[in-house]
Amino acid sequence: MSLLRKVVFLQRKLQLIPPGSSLLVAFSGGADSVALVLALLELKGFIGWKRILLMHVNHMIRGGEAERDELFCREFAQRHQLPLLVERIDIPSIAEKKKENLESIAREERYRLLREVKDREGLDLIVTAHHLNDLVETVLLWLVRGCGTEGLMGFDEREGDVVRPLFLVKKEEIVAFVKGKGESWVEDSTNMDVGYARNRIRHRVIPELKKINPSFEENFLRLRALLKDEDSYLREKTKEALALVQQEGRKAFLKLHPALQRRVVMEIYGVRNFRLVEQIINSIKKGEELKTAQYRIS
Amino acid sequence: MSLLRKVVFLQRKLQLIPPGSSLLVAFSGGADSVALVLALLELKGFIGWKRILLMHVNHMIRGGEAERDELFCREFAQRHQLPLLVERIDIPSIAEKKKENLESIAREERYRLLREVKDREGLDLIVTAHHLNDLVETVLLWLVRGCGTEGLMGFDEREGDVVRPLFLVKKEEIVAFVKGKGESWVEDSTNMDVGYARNRIRHRVIPELKKINPSFEENFLRLRALLKDEDSYLREKTKEALALVQQEGRKAFLKLHPALQRRVVMEIYGVRNFRLVEQIINSIKKGEELKTAQYRIS
Repeated sequence: MSLLRKVVFLQRKLQLIPPGSSLLVAFSGGADSVALVLALLELKGFIGWKRILLMHVNHMIRGGEAERDELFCREFAQRHQLPLLVERIDIPSIAEKKKENLESIAREERYRLLREVKDREGLDLIVTAHHLNDLVETVLLWLVRGCGTEGLMGFDEREGDVVRPLFLVKKEEIVAFVKGKGESWVEDSTNMDVGYARNRIRHRVIPELKKINPSFEENFLRLRALLKDEDSYLREKTKEALALVQQEGRKAFLKLHPALQRRVVMEIYGVRNFRLVEQIINSIKKGEELKTAQYRIS
Repeated sequence: MSLLRKVVFLQRKLQLIPPGSSLLVAFSGGADSVALVLALLELKGFIGWKRILLMHVNHMIRGGEAERDELFCREFAQRHQLPLLVERIDIPSIAEKKKENLESIAREERYRLLREVKDREGLDLIVTAHHLNDLVETVLLWLVRGCGTEGLMGFDEREGDVVRPLFLVKKEEIVAFVKGKGESWVEDSTNMDVGYARNRIRHRVIPELKKINPSFEENFLRLRALLKDEDSYLREKTKEALALVQQEGRKAFLKLHPALQRRVVMEIYGVRNFRLVEQIINSIKKGEELKTAQYRIS
């Protein structure tokens, strides 16, 4: 399936971006976001979207390269007659102050800004260029760093006001699509640095896995669909269990299946750490009452 | 935790090999099975196992190297005063006849032989040297080749009459344990051939993942525990759903959550293929009755 067909398929299946929507597109100038904008432009009239606004965030991390990227984005937007907002944030200083790593601060600040602009401009949705390879990389990263079952599902096509039309598209299809349009993009030089865990997964791990099975990513999507369904069922059952525990307390909790006990504790106590969840379950088994009072079922 | 402590921990948790048991140990002469036998010997009196019999299968795949391995096993068994059975099977000829790959035929034939000897000698359990790295490799292999949720769990500590006391032990701990005992082992030269998918995972993929997180294997074990619990709950619910569908047919099936519909179809029709399951569900939705007649609930 071609890139555009995959975007249309997802659009039809989930009504991902309803007709009449106004969109704020996160635009870095990389191949992914160039492909995203080109695809959106091609489908804009067909689906009937109202407005497309690009936003480029200059994180001021990569000095001269960041200036080059900003220029590329300005030129690209002008050529396609698209409005572009450029925001600059001094990520290194914020990271220094908050003592957190650049990557996560950059992501946090980027989404904060996108949301701010979206609200200010009265737009409906934030559109990002996340694609199937990003998904597989994210899941492998979670798997390696340690996660619960939700980590195996990575991110979704739609999360609140963020939508990802390239969700089903592979990187190789993105590159081919952009090249086929005669367009270019800017390459982030840190993308090749395997000192970053994600790049190690991308450049060292996934190519080996694809030698074993070239359609590894598609297979993962199928497995993910199973996991999603089972998770949705388990959430339903957890909700029922929560209501019961809310009414009847500890006694009802002890009768639950261990899988539901774990999910109920995660909900009520707001913890995700495996050991902590086990500790809480053990203390309830030993006689402690559940802290249901502070918890409201939504 | 040391290797022996991990074996004892598992033994206590699951009563993996009950006192008084007679054991048939699959013994290749590789580091894993050498560690297994040394650990079993050390715990034999402590736990009170009755009898340990080693069995070496010469698959006649690797010519001179297979002879060397057989000799090593004979010498090892003699030195430790353990009875050893050696069986030879001409795997290449069988694979040629059955048109299947060597690896899977070898595994199949090895288990068939082990079971035969176990029954003939009146032994209780087959003991294999599978360890934590094997588990992680198996799961990654399934993930890459495409699997359902059961693939994510790999193999179990106990499956029928097969037990795996080294389930929690990492390869590095095995090597250190064997060296610490002043023992040696034979190395299968094909283990280094990354033409085999498993070796590619072992030598190219996992070392990269461990650079990101050295305790990646332990984290996986935790995730696996969650998956196991949720799977056990889903099996319980599937059983209930099956009984209902058995009684009330299609109407009850249509009311089930999609996750249960899928599991019910897999049970009744004995299929695991994702697309096939979807097809069957669709045809039932379109009006076809379920083939519950041929199905017996166990």
